[in-house]
Amino acid sequence: MLSKQDAGIIIDELRQEKGLSWSELAERAECPNVWLVSAVLGMHPVPEEVAEFLRKELELDDELVKALRRQPTRVPEREIATDPTIYRFHELIDVYGPALKALIHDEFGDGIMSAINCSLDFKRVEHPGGDRVHITIDGKYLPYDWVQSDKQ
Amino acid sequence: MLSKQDAGIIIDELRQEKGLSWSELAERAECPNVWLVSAVLGMHPVPEEVAEFLRKELELDDELVKALRRQPTRVPEREIATDPTIYRFHELIDVYGPALKALIHDEFGDGIMSAINCSLDFKRVEHPGGDRVHITIDGKYLPYDWVQSDKQ
Amino acid sequence: MLSKQDAGIIIDELRQEKGLSWSELAERAECPNVWLVSAVLGMHPVPEEVAEFLRKELELDDELVKALRRQPTRVPEREIATDPTIYRFHELIDVYGPALKALIHDEFGDGIMSAINCSLDFKRVEHPGGDRVHITIDGKYLPYDWVQSDKQ
Amino acid sequence: MLSKQDAGIIIDELRQEKGLSWSELAERAECPNVWLVSAVLGMHPVPEEVAEFLRKELELDDELVKALRRQPTRVPEREIATDPTIYRFHELIDVYGPALKALIHDEFGDGIMSAINCSLDFKRVEHPGGDRVHITIDGKYLPYDWVQSDKQ
Amino acid sequence: MLSKQDAGIIIDELRQEKGLSWSELAERAECPNVWLVSAVLGMHPVPEEVAEFLRKELELDDELVKALRRQPTRVPEREIATDPTIYRFHELIDVYGPALKALIHDEFGDGIMSAINCSLDFKRVEHPGGDRVHITIDGKYLPYDWVQSDKQ
Amino acid sequence: MLSKQDAGIIIDELRQEKGLSWSELAERAECPNVWLVSAVLGMHPVPEEVAEFLRKELELDDELVKALRRQPTRVPEREIATDPTIYRFHELIDVYGPALKALIHDEFGDGIMSAINCSLDFKRVEHPGGDRVHITIDGKYLPYDWVQSDKQ
Amino acid sequence: MLSKQDAGIIIDELRQEKGLSWSELAERAECPNVWLVSAVLGMHPVPEEVAEFLRKELELDDELVKALRRQPTRVPEREIATDPTIYRFHELIDVYGPALKALIHDEFGDGIMSAINCSLDFKRVEHPGGDRVHITIDGKYLPYDWVQSDKQ
Amino acid sequence: MLSKQDAGIIIDELRQEKGLSWSELAERAECPNVWLVSAVLGMHPVPEEVAEFLRKELELDDELVKALRRQPTRVPEREIATDPTIYRFHELIDVYGPALKALIHDEFGDGIMSAINCSLDFKRVEHPGGDRVHITIDGKYLPYDWVQSDKQ
Amino acid sequence: MLSKQDAGIIIDELRQEKGLSWSELAERAECPNVWLVSAVLGMHPVPEEVAEFLRKELELDDELVKALRRQPTRVPEREIATDPTIYRFHELIDVYGPALKALIHDEFGDGIMSAINCSLDFKRVEHPGGDRVHITIDGKYLPYDWVQSDKQ
Amino acid sequence: MLSKQDAGIIIDELRQEKGLSWSELAERAECPNVWLVSAVLGMHPVPEEVAEFLRKELELDDELVKALRRQPTRVPEREIATDPTIYRFHELIDVYGPALKALIHDEFGDGIMSAINCSLDFKRVEHPGGDRVHITIDGKYLPYDWVQSDKQ
Repeated sequence: MLSKQDAGIIIDELRQEKGLSWSELAERAECPNVWLVSAVLGMHPVPEEVAEFLRKELELDDELVKALRRQPTRVPEREIATDPTIYRFHELIDVYGPALKALIHDEFGDGIMSAINCSLDFKRVEHPGGDRVHITIDGKYLPYDWVQSDKQ
Repeated sequence: MLSKQDAGIIIDELRQEKGLSWSELAERAECPNVWLVSAVLGMHPVPEEVAEFLRKELELDDELVKALRRQPTRVPEREIATDPTIYRFHELIDVYGPALKALIHDEFGDGIMSAINCSLDFKRVEHPGGDRVHITIDGKYLPYDWVQSDKQ
Repeated sequence: MLSKQDAGIIIDELRQEKGLSWSELAERAECPNVWLVSAVLGMHPVPEEVAEFLRKELELDDELVKALRRQPTRVPEREIATDPTIYRFHELIDVYGPALKALIHDEFGDGIMSAINCSLDFKRVEHPGGDRVHITIDGKYLPYDWVQSDKQ
Repeated sequence: MLSKQDAGIIIDELRQEKGLSWSELAERAECPNVWLVSAVLGMHPVPEEVAEFLRKELELDDELVKALRRQPTRVPEREIATDPTIYRFHELIDVYGPALKALIHDEFGDGIMSAINCSLDFKRVEHPGGDRVHITIDGKYLPYDWVQSDKQ
Repeated sequence: MLSKQDAGIIIDELRQEKGLSWSELAERAECPNVWLVSAVLGMHPVPEEVAEFLRKELELDDELVKALRRQPTRVPEREIATDPTIYRFHELIDVYGPALKALIHDEFGDGIMSAINCSLDFKRVEHPGGDRVHITIDGKYLPYDWVQSDKQ
Repeated sequence: MLSKQDAGIIIDELRQEKGLSWSELAERAECPNVWLVSAVLGMHPVPEEVAEFLRKELELDDELVKALRRQPTRVPEREIATDPTIYRFHELIDVYGPALKALIHDEFGDGIMSAINCSLDFKRVEHPGGDRVHITIDGKYLPYDWVQSDKQ
Repeated sequence: MLSKQDAGIIIDELRQEKGLSWSELAERAECPNVWLVSAVLGMHPVPEEVAEFLRKELELDDELVKALRRQPTRVPEREIATDPTIYRFHELIDVYGPALKALIHDEFGDGIMSAINCSLDFKRVEHPGGDRVHITIDGKYLPYDWVQSDKQ
Repeated sequence: MLSKQDAGIIIDELRQEKGLSWSELAERAECPNVWLVSAVLGMHPVPEEVAEFLRKELELDDELVKALRRQPTRVPEREIATDPTIYRFHELIDVYGPALKALIHDEFGDGIMSAINCSLDFKRVEHPGGDRVHITIDGKYLPYDWVQSDKQ
Repeated sequence: MLSKQDAGIIIDELRQEKGLSWSELAERAECPNVWLVSAVLGMHPVPEEVAEFLRKELELDDELVKALRRQPTRVPEREIATDPTIYRFHELIDVYGPALKALIHDEFGDGIMSAINCSLDFKRVEHPGGDRVHITIDGKYLPYDWVQSDKQ
Repeated sequence: MLSKQDAGIIIDELRQEKGLSWSELAERAECPNVWLVSAVLGMHPVPEEVAEFLRKELELDDELVKALRRQPTRVPEREIATDPTIYRFHELIDVYGPALKALIHDEFGDGIMSAINCSLDFKRVEHPGGDRVHITIDGKYLPYDWVQSDKQ
């Protein structure tokens, strides 16, 4: 059975052969760019209409579409965290994580920013000192809340 | 010798006793909020004028100011990465890191987003479905570049 | 500065000297038992009225009350996970975690059970084959949801 | 030789093709839902009558039935513990494990809750604040007991 | 507060000063030898009569007795597992563990040997080829059993 | 080349098809049960007469017999140590290892129990409180001894 | 799909069959030697003209050229870090890393040497005490700089 | 007893109070800069004349001088390897280590570059694209050599 | 491409079929025994004349000879370090390593024993208390030496 | 209570103040050098006569002598294994361990070299190519032997 990860590698190859950038593909699919790329690379189940769009756009066969639609186990290969391009993001969390935690508690109270009800956006911003990667993380605040369903 | 980390814990305590939120403190200091919090918590050397501002605002003694000004070793305690509020950020990188890498290569070429020439912004955004934590990461793109200083 | 963890150890000692079981204490405090024990042991900030109740009931001094009220970093000592009484719970997640994941996806869709909007309950149940520990975990379902606060 | 884990993946696929939810399958099999799912996914040897039921219901071949019946080694892939849906359960044990240990010792004495003589139940509970995952863990209390078989 | 582990080190010192071997102490206390040594070294709460016996025999002060009586967290220092005398036991489990698992399943069915309802015995056995360490492990067989307390 | 571990899995399968328990097989082979099971599962080179016995009893082909006879590398898969049936034995060493070390030093002097000149025995013992797994470990005491072969 | 790493191993083999040293190949390709070797071994995407040069020089087929041109994930096998020839470099960083950090801060200020805008050079230097490996690392200094693209 | 590492921290403090850069100190001491910094920070025993120079220049007391002169254990704190300034050097070895290994074998034969008979040099190089950190590593090539001292 | 490690396993098999002990093979090849075994098992490139000797003696095909001659990456499988026969050597270094370090510094100065310019010898020595494994390690002393090739 | 390790550091200091090399001390004590150094550094209990010799020679107080005589836990600090002088020995075992294992099995049969009934010797050997560290390891061969004390 073709895994979602392997399907993602093949679909990425097909995308490049079509000469489509990820952003073009996302725009045509009317999907947010970070969502589309991560979904194709195996991190989300792809809804039917997006899967159909990709089938047509990239001429995918049934097995690839089926892999796209499947529920994933979201575990990236451990080693990939040391690829320099990805490592910089973990380093940012190492350096600024305690500050983000302090600001969340200060601004909202005892809780977290959800990583589930959450969106990311990626764009390129021109800048005289060199163009910049501009990423937004936008997650719902969840307060620690001791709800008991039998005590509504 | 008082470490920057321990100094940060004491200064945070003094801040709370003054009844100042981190955001208020940052606004008065005319500093970005994420920068100020992380600097006070020990992740950056604090420039003289900011250190002087904090000395006055929070009535710091010389040892605390000296610790603020010192060059840090930027290594957070390993364990803190599993605090639920901080863990969610690492999980986001685990889930979306490969997509961010793909978009950087697609949009800019072979390189990384700098974690050094980089700023973060934290704000609260109201939302009918529950208020949201809104974070931006804004880093300079650095292409892999084989510069040799003796071959200018 | 007294840490929340160390405060918890001292308060537990005082509780035992008063001859109060955790359940009695929770009942008097009108708090759920799992919540109260974990809060005292350093895993939650304790709200003012509960802290006042504990101050009176257990004759706590100001430093202990202050530690109770503080925002925690929720990181238990790594090693404690191999204490036999705690290890059995991790083993259950190792053995039944994939089944719980499958049932969540089957019953609700692509998402998680929140560990933040979540309550636990502990009780003893009599049973002819030997009395039983009966624990309920009751957490809000959170669907993966790509909300963008600027696209309300 | 087909492993129990691989057999589980294939049987899950066949189940989905039949359009049966896990809960429907468990109900028809007259088995508890968590038990059935974990057994099919490779964590328990499946008794003959359940294996026969599954053979008929899902049209399994002999090799799959044989794999279901085999005694397992109960070791999930290490990495799966960081899948967000499963990680939340480990986080709960990290945060509430010491409280559960304290309550067991307080209520029963020096011992553990068995992870072997133990059942789990999973159900969906409707709730105005959002439907909830409701899990019960029900394990026999085992006191530390220094029994020597030659000193009956 | 004196930890059980530190109390154990002090009591062991006092025992040696009295010129008592562990076995003599265990015999006088009418306790199994492995149990007594592990309890004094911090792995079990010591019942009142044994604690009183030790208080008299070794002239312990109140703090030591209190530490003995306390409920332990059973986590030995990680590093101790590589002490050559202790490592040999872990090596035996590495080499013979799969065989013991096979024999348990073959002889009893799907289950485990309890490490809680379990006793160990240590004795020296004379042998022409060199005296031998003779240890017995005697634990109750626990079958995997899906008992639900509300379905008695 | 067929590894000893893979040969063991195949031979175990053949044994079950013959309807022979491990104990019956050991009895017929006139071998200790723990030794025979671990040898077949790949932890010992099997002597010629035992290999011949197994060839006849279980109708093994030459490749399987050759694998049985080969010198092993004794390294079980790391993960298997967390299988619940095997983990309980490691937990026993974690809890009682320091006591066993203390008793060895007390009773014999500075040395270890050999894990090489060592035998294990496994038997089932009936008991009113539930049948018990009874294991003996019987190893030669080895004193730390600074022998130099050129100073006989 | 042929991975860049596997392509590198095959191309290295072809290079040896042609009797070309890495340095000769680099010279003919008019590329720095460290860059060329690491690029062929899978650590860099190879630009078209270099790929064409290698195709001709080493008679590569299309699949190999395609693998050379692909964007890499830069994660060497973890184990390779203990190969004696590579380990010595990590040891140098362990021993001299803190000194290099101190000199960077002293000479430039709070920042890092870029590992992205960076070149290495390898040459052999004759020396009466034995010939020497002479490596230069030449990276751009990057100051910690809190640039915000929306505040140009 | 004052450790070499702690002595290094104190001496660094004294150096800064004197307003001396590391490079100035190294120049006055007529020592290579990387060597002097690493020696003071605890990675080398300091020869008598350098220790005497430092005693006078920085007004060190006897305990500090004694610590400088002592033979070190060369083990930096593990965590420091993730400080961003130091991490970049380990990343370079991860990315270029296999290339350096290939070039050493190609140019010299089967062997290593010594990390013991080895020197490093650090200098700042001006560059129109931004000033650069320029480091040289210069180590003796050591061929694998099977010398037996009794077969001269 | 056949790896050196896999080639070693096959050649070892051929050696056993020829009924040759490693020592006999080494003697005929006029090579030190430890060197020959480790070279065949994949830890050294084998020089042409030894490779030719082995080709004839063991009737190796070209692919095996080519694998023997290749430059190795010297990384044994991590797990093998826990095989009891190999583990004892690591334990010796754990127990006696600090003493060997002290003696090297005492006898020679600040430096190391080379693991590259180094030979080992293995022999069996008869002894009334049981025959003994007698190993010598014979390595060149390398003093820490700050040689700079441009300052000859 | 003074640990054996800390006692070792103090005694080493006293030794250096007396101007005695380890070898001189060992010679006067009529002990093997490796044994004496490791015993003083905390890896062996020191017999009464050697302890008395050291008391006189180095003017030790009672607490130091008591620490010397105590039974050790033989666990060196984990980090020390990466000190360059000690690391080279572990590297030798990584590179030559499989060859030593093969030679032991070939020459003696299925067993190990004891690390308990074992001696080491350290000496300096002059050599025209540079003086050499010459170490012998001399351990009793122990065959895997399934002795059962009740079946003498």
